[in-house]
Amino acid sequence: MAAPIDFYFDFSSPYGYFASAKIDALAAKYGREVAWRPFLLGAAMKITGGVPLPSVPMKGDYARRDFARSAKFYGVEYKLPSTFPISSQAPARAFYWLNRKDPKQAQALAAALYRAYFVDDINISNPEDTIAVCARFGLKAEEVRAALNDPGVKELAKAEVDKAIARGAFGSPYIVVDDEAFWGADRLEQIEKWLASGGWKY
Amino acid sequence: MAAPIDFYFDFSSPYGYFASAKIDALAAKYGREVAWRPFLLGAAMKITGGVPLPSVPMKGDYARRDFARSAKFYGVEYKLPSTFPISSQAPARAFYWLNRKDPKQAQALAAALYRAYFVDDINISNPEDTIAVCARFGLKAEEVRAALNDPGVKELAKAEVDKAIARGAFGSPYIVVDDEAFWGADRLEQIEKWLASGGWKY
Repeated sequence: MAAPIDFYFDFSSPYGYFASAKIDALAAKYGREVAWRPFLLGAAMKITGGVPLPSVPMKGDYARRDFARSAKFYGVEYKLPSTFPISSQAPARAFYWLNRKDPKQAQALAAALYRAYFVDDINISNPEDTIAVCARFGLKAEEVRAALNDPGVKELAKAEVDKAIARGAFGSPYIVVDDEAFWGADRLEQIEKWLASGGWKY
Repeated sequence: MAAPIDFYFDFSSPYGYFASAKIDALAAKYGREVAWRPFLLGAAMKITGGVPLPSVPMKGDYARRDFARSAKFYGVEYKLPSTFPISSQAPARAFYWLNRKDPKQAQALAAALYRAYFVDDINISNPEDTIAVCARFGLKAEEVRAALNDPGVKELAKAEVDKAIARGAFGSPYIVVDDEAFWGADRLEQIEKWLASGGWKY
């Protein structure tokens, strides 16, 4: 069986959130699995010199409209969080801690964390808010709290972020199908054509 | 009849070029016309602090692949020009000079200039190369040369660039349907849905 599709995303990224609602079904249609791999856009921006969208003149105003309009276009529930963007270290650590034990469950947790941030306006950059989301998801709050403070988990999450960046992830979502990288929720159409046709030379 | 769709683009932008191959047919399908409005991304970047894609670490490498892959996806002939990106002042001035007399012909000239740059690798940032393209297009070289040096034409082109930026154009293509702005060739799908449905609240 072909390797999973690597789905790199930042928990603070609306376009990552939109893609997260679509990527599994798209992959399944072509018999592919998806490996969810949260990373930190902030770490990539240190290399690219990028700036969070909302603070870019002109582009920031456009982006806020495009987020909301695109949510409707994709049919995904969405509200601009009161605090945006955020550092997504806490949810990324919770994810990789759980992922070590159960990738499928970690993926479901990621969906719950995304929903908490982009639907329920819960600021998951606060470790206690991430812990509360994990608890509602069915995990033990004490275990999650311990995991977020565990140097081994911190190291694991950092190593995954470094790997994402080494793979070329500079934006969110960044989706790698075999060795082909696609940036943006708006590349889902190209990904579908790529999967359906076996790719093309260019 | 509804106002034309405003199609803002930079002659140096591959995504503007891809959209230019699609926008007229898309608009016509919904009984709409298109006003082509070249502008200068460099002028917008002075406001946004943006940097030309190819020189951004990580993103530049991705962009070069995405240009070529997207060209195939859209079915548009394309080759990365030897000099890229370029300042597109000369073709923008030629366009607005002709546009004053005949917008339809100016639009056809814009398509010829885009093709010269992205298919035939002619560096249209050089006024003499823009003049040569205009001559092959059927215009009188002497008239074009005079136009490119005409302070009135320079002023006209500058005023159009200023208007584009005042309208919010920070990237290419930037397409305004009534009062709704869409950035990127990858928003053509949303534009189609918007035109087909009469738009949506968000």
